[in-house]
Amino acid sequence: MTEVHLGHRFGDVLVTVLDVDGQPLSDREVTVEQRAHDFSFGNIGFELIALASGESDEAAGLADLWLDVFNTATLPFYWGPFEPQRGRPDTERLHRAAKWFVDRGCRVKGHPLLWHTLTADWLREASTDEVEAAVRARIRREVADFADVVDAWDAINEAVIMPVFANERQRNAITRLAWERGRIATVRLAFDEARAADPAATLLINDFDLSTAYECLIEGVLAAGIRVDAIGLQTHMHQGYWGEEKTLAILDRFARFGLPIHLTETSLVSGTVMPPEIEDLNDYQPESWPSTPAGEQRQADEIVRHYRLLLSHPCVQAITYWGLSDDGAWLGAPSGLVRADGTPKPAYDALRALLKQEWWLAPTKLRTDDAGRVHIRGFLGDYLLQHADHTASVAVSAPGMSRTRARLRPRSEHGHQAAATWR
Amino acid sequence: MTEVHLGHRFGDVLVTVLDVDGQPLSDREVTVEQRAHDFSFGNIGFELIALASGESDEAAGLADLWLDVFNTATLPFYWGPFEPQRGRPDTERLHRAAKWFVDRGCRVKGHPLLWHTLTADWLREASTDEVEAAVRARIRREVADFADVVDAWDAINEAVIMPVFANERQRNAITRLAWERGRIATVRLAFDEARAADPAATLLINDFDLSTAYECLIEGVLAAGIRVDAIGLQTHMHQGYWGEEKTLAILDRFARFGLPIHLTETSLVSGTVMPPEIEDLNDYQPESWPSTPAGEQRQADEIVRHYRLLLSHPCVQAITYWGLSDDGAWLGAPSGLVRADGTPKPAYDALRALLKQEWWLAPTKLRTDDAGRVHIRGFLGDYLLQHADHTASVAVSAPGMSRTRARLRPRSEHGHQAAATWR
Repeated sequence: MTEVHLGHRFGDVLVTVLDVDGQPLSDREVTVEQRAHDFSFGNIGFELIALASGESDEAAGLADLWLDVFNTATLPFYWGPFEPQRGRPDTERLHRAAKWFVDRGCRVKGHPLLWHTLTADWLREASTDEVEAAVRARIRREVADFADVVDAWDAINEAVIMPVFANERQRNAITRLAWERGRIATVRLAFDEARAADPAATLLINDFDLSTAYECLIEGVLAAGIRVDAIGLQTHMHQGYWGEEKTLAILDRFARFGLPIHLTETSLVSGTVMPPEIEDLNDYQPESWPSTPAGEQRQADEIVRHYRLLLSHPCVQAITYWGLSDDGAWLGAPSGLVRADGTPKPAYDALRALLKQEWWLAPTKLRTDDAGRVHIRGFLGDYLLQHADHTASVAVSAPGMSRTRARLRPRSEHGHQAAATWR
Repeated sequence: MTEVHLGHRFGDVLVTVLDVDGQPLSDREVTVEQRAHDFSFGNIGFELIALASGESDEAAGLADLWLDVFNTATLPFYWGPFEPQRGRPDTERLHRAAKWFVDRGCRVKGHPLLWHTLTADWLREASTDEVEAAVRARIRREVADFADVVDAWDAINEAVIMPVFANERQRNAITRLAWERGRIATVRLAFDEARAADPAATLLINDFDLSTAYECLIEGVLAAGIRVDAIGLQTHMHQGYWGEEKTLAILDRFARFGLPIHLTETSLVSGTVMPPEIEDLNDYQPESWPSTPAGEQRQADEIVRHYRLLLSHPCVQAITYWGLSDDGAWLGAPSGLVRADGTPKPAYDALRALLKQEWWLAPTKLRTDDAGRVHIRGFLGDYLLQHADHTASVAVSAPGMSRTRARLRPRSEHGHQAAATWR
């Protein structure tokens, strides 16, 4: 059944296996196993920064859990915390953290280059022209400084509400900029600067507002000639799982633009769900919000339904879950996949089973034919062929049948398998 | 107090009054009185079409009430009712009705050229290319046929929801067009055709959705280079008066585009208000929805507060109330200013007092100085100067002080005073 709905996620490759001398390896047993998903199964890497930057190894256990399931890390570039004092950005530490993920075969995404929340407080008194100049410089700086390790950015976050954001005591400088210049001009500014600093980066527009407002904004941005590489949709489901029908209707509305869709911020709670009358999720932060056995089972069921549905839609290219552990989770919600005590919840196990068992080709023995050929069918991604102590890499990179050759080499000659592009 | 908040609605003109021979009329008594408002105080003219087109004089009493307060008539061009059979549009009758209003000094606005509701049912089976061609032809035809009597159009109505409109059993052709082509392309189509057919017409985009979605759409439309002459905001307040704070916040958000704002559809009920949980006003149509004495008093208070607030905002250029009588009112609501039995409600009297007394210069005696000058200060509009049986027209057309000359002529030489532009 899975394959019926997920056909576009699978590819078939007829591989001619060559021996070290370049001759077809006829009628021999080889083992093939998947090494990586093309699809971006991401999570935030916030919790691993101290470990990844070499400051502490407290989170070593969490890191193992993280790396066993996810292949894409979102790292935080909130301007305020990143550059609390003007001119002293936290570049070095975060670059070490990003490199740590890259060294482990992960892609890294930066979040966000421009947002009105958690922005630099020291900009509040600046003139709007100064704010614009500072924003441009900051975007250029971050994108250039991280071009070797970060290959995707939320260029702008929550532009729909940005100019009219009012949930704060005093209006921040970014909201003022967006109010005075307009949303599209502000989006253009972020994309222009990021694009100039790293033409190879994947640049997203990202929003929690999935109403017609966001559709209208995207239409306007595209009509204005701004190149957007992917549409980011936040899906923080603190008020309960949305269900397949609603989720699919949203995907269909945003698929209309012909751009890849990234589910940039996904969360499901394993405790009481937030009351439906709350409009801004930030307005509900109870003192205690425990994870419960029933809630954990529900979360496990829902995460599988959610990922299954998302993968069934051809436009979806990436899903980022928002947080691994309940310890320090956003809003204090039990939205992690791991309890505060470090033990995996059922949702962790369920997601791992989906991504690394059901949607994964475990080591499988195949026999080459007379011409040295084997047929690999699997989820799009990177595969390893083995014969004795020789190996070869094979990519299953598109749906449908393709042909390729793979030459076996001594195992030690292979470098690390990194899936470095957003396919 | 009124003048403090409405200063931009008043002008001062120092008029040098000339006698029939062109000599200054020194030290004489003249009478000055207002004849028309520049500001568009509109209402729909639907209820007067039978009368105005010469089919029936049943509504004669209603017509007197209408003309005593309003100067701008919105006439219905809903495609379905206007052209129930393809190729047989209701042009002639509606043109007679429009002419009737123009002959009485009123401006006429057409509503709407493109809308997914009440659209032509016979388009449902057509291909999207055929739908587009039919839409273009229909817009060109109506705008050209009415160019002599209609000077403003809602070029497109409710484009925010248009492509995703789902409150119907079977998807209509206009929703399909907007879904396939996109909102901005659909807006462009309507404006392009209307503009080509009558370059002098005032073309509006109009919506009930006053959320950020509409802001985003307008930004996109403007970024795409589409010339919009005014932004139309619907304010059907069946769920209760919004109050000054909310209304002002909305005006401020839409004033940001630097375009005139028209309150195109205004209503306040004089009975029970609709429950707040209703999302689509169309979903609440009780069998009986009576006007009550308490409701009528509330409506009278609210209409004055509403108009006062709207006029205080410099961007507001027009207000159209939606319906004069409760008889046949939209949704069966007691939103009229006149009861079903034809007697004026307190809201009618209150609005008339505001527009024709408080914001109006009644006949006033002034004395010219040695140089023949009098100072007229009044609401922007047209004024009549009288001296004995001679008269002269004076326009107070901009805030601040200006000077002009007015030459008296025998009364019979004056033509009709029509305020024909949207100033």
